[in-house]
Amino acid sequence: MGTVPLLSDEEAAPEARAVFDDIRAKRQTDTVNNFWRALAHDPAQLASVWERVQQVMAPGALDPLTKELIYVAVSTVNGCSYCVHSHTAAARAKGLTPEMHGELLAVIAMAMQTNALVTALGVEADEHFKA
Amino acid sequence: MGTVPLLSDEEAAPEARAVFDDIRAKRQTDTVNNFWRALAHDPAQLASVWERVQQVMAPGALDPLTKELIYVAVSTVNGCSYCVHSHTAAARAKGLTPEMHGELLAVIAMAMQTNALVTALGVEADEHFKA
Amino acid sequence: MGTVPLLSDEEAAPEARAVFDDIRAKRQTDTVNNFWRALAHDPAQLASVWERVQQVMAPGALDPLTKELIYVAVSTVNGCSYCVHSHTAAARAKGLTPEMHGELLAVIAMAMQTNALVTALGVEADEHFKA
Amino acid sequence: MGTVPLLSDEEAAPEARAVFDDIRAKRQTDTVNNFWRALAHDPAQLASVWERVQQVMAPGALDPLTKELIYVAVSTVNGCSYCVHSHTAAARAKGLTPEMHGELLAVIAMAMQTNALVTALGVEADEHFKA
Amino acid sequence: MGTVPLLSDEEAAPEARAVFDDIRAKRQTDTVNNFWRALAHDPAQLASVWERVQQVMAPGALDPLTKELIYVAVSTVNGCSYCVHSHTAAARAKGLTPEMHGELLAVIAMAMQTNALVTALGVEADEHFKA
Amino acid sequence: MGTVPLLSDEEAAPEARAVFDDIRAKRQTDTVNNFWRALAHDPAQLASVWERVQQVMAPGALDPLTKELIYVAVSTVNGCSYCVHSHTAAARAKGLTPEMHGELLAVIAMAMQTNALVTALGVEADEHFKA
Repeated sequence: MGTVPLLSDEEAAPEARAVFDDIRAKRQTDTVNNFWRALAHDPAQLASVWERVQQVMAPGALDPLTKELIYVAVSTVNGCSYCVHSHTAAARAKGLTPEMHGELLAVIAMAMQTNALVTALGVEADEHFKA
Repeated sequence: MGTVPLLSDEEAAPEARAVFDDIRAKRQTDTVNNFWRALAHDPAQLASVWERVQQVMAPGALDPLTKELIYVAVSTVNGCSYCVHSHTAAARAKGLTPEMHGELLAVIAMAMQTNALVTALGVEADEHFKA
Repeated sequence: MGTVPLLSDEEAAPEARAVFDDIRAKRQTDTVNNFWRALAHDPAQLASVWERVQQVMAPGALDPLTKELIYVAVSTVNGCSYCVHSHTAAARAKGLTPEMHGELLAVIAMAMQTNALVTALGVEADEHFKA
Repeated sequence: MGTVPLLSDEEAAPEARAVFDDIRAKRQTDTVNNFWRALAHDPAQLASVWERVQQVMAPGALDPLTKELIYVAVSTVNGCSYCVHSHTAAARAKGLTPEMHGELLAVIAMAMQTNALVTALGVEADEHFKA
Repeated sequence: MGTVPLLSDEEAAPEARAVFDDIRAKRQTDTVNNFWRALAHDPAQLASVWERVQQVMAPGALDPLTKELIYVAVSTVNGCSYCVHSHTAAARAKGLTPEMHGELLAVIAMAMQTNALVTALGVEADEHFKA
Repeated sequence: MGTVPLLSDEEAAPEARAVFDDIRAKRQTDTVNNFWRALAHDPAQLASVWERVQQVMAPGALDPLTKELIYVAVSTVNGCSYCVHSHTAAARAKGLTPEMHGELLAVIAMAMQTNALVTALGVEADEHFKA
């Protein structure tokens, strides 16, 4: 239920179309996901997000698969099912096995539990935290 | 601002005290965090959470450090500062470097952004997602 | 996937039907959105929400368009896509241009980022905040 | 309860110190908030966030005060009290009156209500939304 | 870290002071919580919230204690520790026992888990839900 | 939009199939909801969640209907519409009347409001809370 129409290649402004083409080149696919086509109404924002995503998700001290796991976790808590879906797919493309996926879900579920217990119990910071 | 008092070793019921001692043994520390001392009012819940945490956070298809990163991510989105603090400390004990920490934060921040953009744009699932 | 059926004009209790008619009159439309038709199972709550919405969203120190932008922002963070959609439409009816919409999204995205960074870093209140 | 120490001017790396000085110059104040001092552990991220904040919050189709109101709304829903405080202060510096502040809070509260009612009722998208 | 000062009885406008006095009378206590003193900057909002709270939390098809349990649950998920604290206290005044409190926390924790699992798994509505 | 396929009885591993059969027996229905069929990819997690749900939701100091109300409240705030739907149905099976449902929604909505007001006002803990 879009609040904006998804822009086709032809409807996108040149600056946005350039980003679509870069996505195709970098991801080695002809597909440009709906997210980018919706964001294309603001070509400057589209370009900024695309650039930042490449920087942030590149191999670094953390490997790309680990970064996708974190992305899925955040998207799950925020309830963004589109994002959960697209980043789970990305994680699979980067090596996520069913066994890893099960463990990811178990950790997310565990954290959701203890986050709520801490808040409901009003647990105060341990002295050694403040050091 | 606890909704329950933190139980000392002496105040805890025997079943809860046994969990405290197991935490000390398994974590090789004399410290039992405030979280466990608050949860100790319900010894069955305390035992269940402690057992499950050990299972979920053990080395598996995902390594323990990766699991802590996911835990910090979920805790951040849920706004649980106690949990963020304790799991960041745990991550450091399992090998988190400042460089990794910066990348973790950058991924969390990126995901928060795109999760919101997807929701605000009302992006619908791509056809290829449904396959 | 409603948890209650949407009530038609005929199915709604008289008190609820009166609210439907007032919505039509005030909004100068024949449409009564699904939200109101779902809420109509509790005519007192329907009447209370409708009255309060009119008070809160009326022109005041903040203009109606600004109020809709705030509404979209809250709805985005809460992940309510129905609400995002209906309030984005309302914002457009009150003067939202595509340029404004892009800026609204950019601010929401920025805030999501820095909110998470603050929590993950455990930033403590500055002294000058407490004054 | 920081997960990282706040960096003083002397402790910050040159790239980070340069951002501190730019904040001072642009905001015409000697104060560099704790947020920036915590983020300074990752000078590249600090620079990126500072640059983006200036772009996003600048006068545009939406004025700076309106942008701060949106920022406060997002921060409220995310439960980031540090952010609520600092952006409410920024809003006041940009012209927020007590009357406007009351209206902002009333809209946020209203949206929180209806967001939850929509979700609890499972309200489905109106046909006219899909057009 | 208030964004507004807490108003004393003397500082509050007459309309707000009247609400303070009504709170004292209805709750049979001399204490007026900080929440009301902060809200008092907007006497109309204060009056509206106080009136609605009394209606919503009164005995009805659900008893007052059950209503406080729901209030604590919502406040926990929203991470509002002030609210968790004040409504847990209210629940205790209405009959909450330690055993009930433990069960409340266990249900909240369970729901947090399964909510996240559903989102991460992208579980689609069962056919029989749509009936 | 599942991130995993829903497993039929035949596709599920024996340990998962045993859980399906136990669900049928305990709930006296032939239906195994999609949630369990998605979770079945991790038979150990499926078994653990099923076991815990039965313990947590059993009659205790709180009755089963009250527990479902709490579950619906948490699911609403987390925006999990699947969970809201399935637990509202469970609540109805345990005695939820339309009148109770309306009151549940009114309490959730009230709490969402005041949670946000507290955060936006930065209300600090009352002295008597700390006692």
